[in-house]
Amino acid sequence: MDLAPTKSKSSSIIDCDFHQTLKSFEDLKPYLPRVWWPRLCAPEATLPITIFKPIPLSRRDASPGKGLPPGSDPQYAIEDALNRYNISKAVLTGSLLTVSAHNNPDYAAAIASAFNDYTLDHWIPTDDRFLASILVATQDPVLAAREIDRLGSHPKVVQVLLPVGSREPFGQRRFYPIYEAAVRNNLVVAIHGGGEGDGINPPISAVGQPTTNFERHNILAIHHMSQLNSIVCEGVFETFPTLKVIFIEGGLAWVPHLMWRMDKNFRGMRNEVPWLKKKPSEYIIEHCRFTTQPIEEPDNHELIQMLSMMRAEKTVLFATDYPHWDNDSPTFVLNKLPGELRRRIAYENAAELYELNHSHVEKEGVSR
Amino acid sequence: MDLAPTKSKSSSIIDCDFHQTLKSFEDLKPYLPRVWWPRLCAPEATLPITIFKPIPLSRRDASPGKGLPPGSDPQYAIEDALNRYNISKAVLTGSLLTVSAHNNPDYAAAIASAFNDYTLDHWIPTDDRFLASILVATQDPVLAAREIDRLGSHPKVVQVLLPVGSREPFGQRRFYPIYEAAVRNNLVVAIHGGGEGDGINPPISAVGQPTTNFERHNILAIHHMSQLNSIVCEGVFETFPTLKVIFIEGGLAWVPHLMWRMDKNFRGMRNEVPWLKKKPSEYIIEHCRFTTQPIEEPDNHELIQMLSMMRAEKTVLFATDYPHWDNDSPTFVLNKLPGELRRRIAYENAAELYELNHSHVEKEGVSR
Repeated sequence: MDLAPTKSKSSSIIDCDFHQTLKSFEDLKPYLPRVWWPRLCAPEATLPITIFKPIPLSRRDASPGKGLPPGSDPQYAIEDALNRYNISKAVLTGSLLTVSAHNNPDYAAAIASAFNDYTLDHWIPTDDRFLASILVATQDPVLAAREIDRLGSHPKVVQVLLPVGSREPFGQRRFYPIYEAAVRNNLVVAIHGGGEGDGINPPISAVGQPTTNFERHNILAIHHMSQLNSIVCEGVFETFPTLKVIFIEGGLAWVPHLMWRMDKNFRGMRNEVPWLKKKPSEYIIEHCRFTTQPIEEPDNHELIQMLSMMRAEKTVLFATDYPHWDNDSPTFVLNKLPGELRRRIAYENAAELYELNHSHVEKEGVSR
Repeated sequence: MDLAPTKSKSSSIIDCDFHQTLKSFEDLKPYLPRVWWPRLCAPEATLPITIFKPIPLSRRDASPGKGLPPGSDPQYAIEDALNRYNISKAVLTGSLLTVSAHNNPDYAAAIASAFNDYTLDHWIPTDDRFLASILVATQDPVLAAREIDRLGSHPKVVQVLLPVGSREPFGQRRFYPIYEAAVRNNLVVAIHGGGEGDGINPPISAVGQPTTNFERHNILAIHHMSQLNSIVCEGVFETFPTLKVIFIEGGLAWVPHLMWRMDKNFRGMRNEVPWLKKKPSEYIIEHCRFTTQPIEEPDNHELIQMLSMMRAEKTVLFATDYPHWDNDSPTFVLNKLPGELRRRIAYENAAELYELNHSHVEKEGVSR
């Protein structure tokens, strides 16, 4: 991480992973049915809490003061991140991402819904650069689809956000109401880290729970891999040909391996998936996007090779993960990249994914 | 797969994954306590059977005839693979690899033990080129260690074989009796595909069971990743500094991603693992080895780049996976590689790992 401000004002940046959070669970009360209020007073019953959680999760220097959590004050976050790094747009990816790991699907849906209202009321009006995600709990995809239809037409909403942790892979048919609603509302589907190994979900590692948060964090991307593999294999992109899926906070360097393995196996086992009309890697490059943070940090020539293998000029988008402890500054990531690739990753790929009008954004940048 | 014979007689090859199997479970009876015999007559109770299993698992053309399973007749396998491909040594990796997924640890240990006796009696004497693994069931590591001590001094035994599927990651302390016994007997520890998602083990994918064998096979390597990550993070290589671990049938191209992610996180979280004295990638390159099959098949220059990223000149070993359906011939794999790297992967890395005397092997090759 490098906290130096971005050098050039001319280089536009879209941040695809910017975390807003609550000052406290009290913030949800205006949007939450009273039947659920008692849970807000009992932290152990509010949401599944991972025993592996890094302490602290967020940068202490990103706190707005007065003992408030980092990312809980829009004005502070605007100064501390958007202005400091000259960010053109920031997609809010929220918090409460263990919501899909809760045992109660009705409560989980109500919490996600209340958080969405809180975001639209308390964050979106504070700065034109913020864009919103609709957080949904995946335990009940029909309730999730209802939430998407409730808020999907809001002009600042650009995507549906699914925490990656799940008991069932997202390619399976019971999740189709979510994709139908996303497509109906012209929204991207975002799959973001959260809920792995918590609550009702399977263990973090494929062979049981790890021992340390270090071990946990190293292996988290297997959940992104499993979801991507399921979505492609089940033919979700044949059923929903306009759907785009963005994988957030899963890292990047596993993508070539999975694409290659899927393509190899497709040659030997395509008779099992007759609904697939092209190679798995073609669906991935056309329909899937991946954000940079936490970007792997090998020698730079190896990073560039890996990015080339995954067609990063089309598939990779910049993200800070502000204000989490391991967030990346734009300079740290983008200075590693050659010019044209830097422009694609910093701005163009996200602008195309979210259908943002380039000149409009740049004008806003100038007027601010 | 390319079935053409290996061109040059001079290029020595060690095959690190050669599967022998039983003609039928009856073959185990001479080595198995009578109390377990009734299970051998009831296929559904013998070993966990994966519903995802490819049908057939093995190449039909590798059957010795008379309706016998491929890999069940040493003489046929010697002609069909060792002689055809001019293989100098073949490490037998057996079958019954769901043994660690069985609910009963005593039965599982007895089955593994019987299979080892069968291998040493029926396969090892048939050809000097065969080397043996000791299959152990990991449910009870103390019983596993006893089995390693029982057979570990046999001159043809080169390694202990653990199926990768497990309820607990292999770095955890309850597995240390296995590593102690392996080191005591100067044996490599091999972790081989098998038991993922079967019986008592967690699901195949990190987010629940997949739908097709295609989807299953694409994601299997997350079990290898999880075990490697656990073993390094827990400091197994600090506790057992002479231990070597070979990861078989997990593919290769995921290794750079995991090494890079571990090294990055080590910079931020090494306070959680004070027993680690160097970067995770250094332990991996020094102590871990990976076999080629099922090798990923991107454009060749991308494969060479990926192999360079994982220091393949030291870490990668050739394997056929004979006689399974997706086995690789030496020509198919080795012809992709430049000369020096080909020699390392085809022969040298395995000869060093298993401490095989090069000139001794070549002499055997000539006298045959």
